[in-house]
Amino acid sequence: MKVGVIGSGALGLYYGAMLQRGGADVHYLLRRDYVALSSTGLKVFSVNGNFHLEQVKGYRDPTKIGQVDLVLVGLKTFANHSLVELVRPLVGPETLILTLQNGLGNEELLAAAFRPQQLLGGVAFLCSNRGEPGEVHHLGEGRIRLGNYASADLARCQNLADAFSRAGVPCEASDDLIRIRWEKLAWNIPFNGLCALTGKDVTELLEHAPTRELVADMMAEVVRAANRQSLKSPIDAANFIEHMLSVSDAMDHYKPSMMIDRLEGRRLELEAIYAIPLQRAREVGASMAQVDMLHRCLSVGETDPR
Amino acid sequence: MKVGVIGSGALGLYYGAMLQRGGADVHYLLRRDYVALSSTGLKVFSVNGNFHLEQVKGYRDPTKIGQVDLVLVGLKTFANHSLVELVRPLVGPETLILTLQNGLGNEELLAAAFRPQQLLGGVAFLCSNRGEPGEVHHLGEGRIRLGNYASADLARCQNLADAFSRAGVPCEASDDLIRIRWEKLAWNIPFNGLCALTGKDVTELLEHAPTRELVADMMAEVVRAANRQSLKSPIDAANFIEHMLSVSDAMDHYKPSMMIDRLEGRRLELEAIYAIPLQRAREVGASMAQVDMLHRCLSVGETDPR
Repeated sequence: MKVGVIGSGALGLYYGAMLQRGGADVHYLLRRDYVALSSTGLKVFSVNGNFHLEQVKGYRDPTKIGQVDLVLVGLKTFANHSLVELVRPLVGPETLILTLQNGLGNEELLAAAFRPQQLLGGVAFLCSNRGEPGEVHHLGEGRIRLGNYASADLARCQNLADAFSRAGVPCEASDDLIRIRWEKLAWNIPFNGLCALTGKDVTELLEHAPTRELVADMMAEVVRAANRQSLKSPIDAANFIEHMLSVSDAMDHYKPSMMIDRLEGRRLELEAIYAIPLQRAREVGASMAQVDMLHRCLSVGETDPR
Repeated sequence: MKVGVIGSGALGLYYGAMLQRGGADVHYLLRRDYVALSSTGLKVFSVNGNFHLEQVKGYRDPTKIGQVDLVLVGLKTFANHSLVELVRPLVGPETLILTLQNGLGNEELLAAAFRPQQLLGGVAFLCSNRGEPGEVHHLGEGRIRLGNYASADLARCQNLADAFSRAGVPCEASDDLIRIRWEKLAWNIPFNGLCALTGKDVTELLEHAPTRELVADMMAEVVRAANRQSLKSPIDAANFIEHMLSVSDAMDHYKPSMMIDRLEGRRLELEAIYAIPLQRAREVGASMAQVDMLHRCLSVGETDPR
């Protein structure tokens, strides 16, 4: 399987490395890590065991990669104005495009430019950070849930999930991409924003009763909005939230990506994680008042999206 | 008039200096500025003209001040556990105690220890910061509104207001201390907290439409709660909020005290500005949902009040 990774941050590098170690022919579009990866390869420091890929195929220009079997999209959504032009050179008639980006709106952007039947979306439960150039740190979790965007070909979706699983990335095919996107939002919306805004990590928020309650209340807002999005079956709010909190309690002072983006002075993924979900909720009459307030507080001082 | 200033921060130093320049015999309880004030006096850098008080009566111990005609309280409310013991040595049978501290709960604390009829409360519309030791910076505004806590003696309250006004501090006596406290909260609650949390100043919040709307919505929440607090006449929300926003628009990148407290690593005045007002609102069935969420976000990582 020839794979092209577009957006080689912590997520793209980690999953690309896992697929490559599993035998795939992986090609990475790179900026920051181009020199390091080309000269010394990619070092993965993982809770499941470190490994070093000595030969890595890195590119600065996506046209040099050519058509692939699978495009793996890990681009930060605030760079989505470049997404289609970066992906286009890799796409042939049989190429699958899988976006593992955060939030909503990414599949729609790709579906407007490519054949929607070639498109899949997924959510990654991955704790990872970039290290020095040429390094990626896998701190925990890693599983993926993915689903077709428009195709009804569940077998194809399952085959792709199996390919990840064989490479050591637990991966589950879902028949409801909208549901898995919203379930992930129920974690991302409270934790990414509150951690970025307060400068406190997941554990600090959960160990302080007033913010723990706020996290749970915001999850409930997201689940209410999700359950009006034509899901195949509704999310059971109480059980789901209890499960989410218990998973989060097990994270040891994890810093979500948006918190790291803010600490490192990068732009925040506000469109994908807040603005578009708020719009989708409004469209079905489900207000998310606390989410809206958090979005407002995060947005001041952010540059407007291009 | 013999005046004792308890809490000689930016507010206490500025008003003490104005009263002293106007002829009052002012005694300052000091910590940080003791050495500087005792040796070189107090320099006031004011938008209304700088001045220098070469002789300043500073103390580390309130018992050395003795009884005064007026105790002027400017202590940060997170130090309220020390308030009564600091004030007590200054109070005789005729002493007036005026607290210009932020938020709610301060008069009640003093009223439990002293004769409530001797007590007045006030709100200060003052943009001031401390500078180097021995300096205070008056950046704008400065007027005070004050009222009796329990006494019906309006003439006495007016006399005190006149004394401030003669010293160059515009001061208005009100017959409704509860109302002036809540009107001030309608400014303090949105701006102090949102500026502290986002790290953006008043102008930045107002020039960004989503946070400008949030500020106005939070003011409306506070006014709704205020209008259930047995005010002598209700606050007209629409006019009041428009006026507050317009006053705030005229502030040039002002940083509220809580923002400075956070930037400088001090504790925040969460009890007086958030917890007690939220409790008073709940008691009359007026929820303040956005205020509550802001309070939760500010409280994580703060040490518990003593």
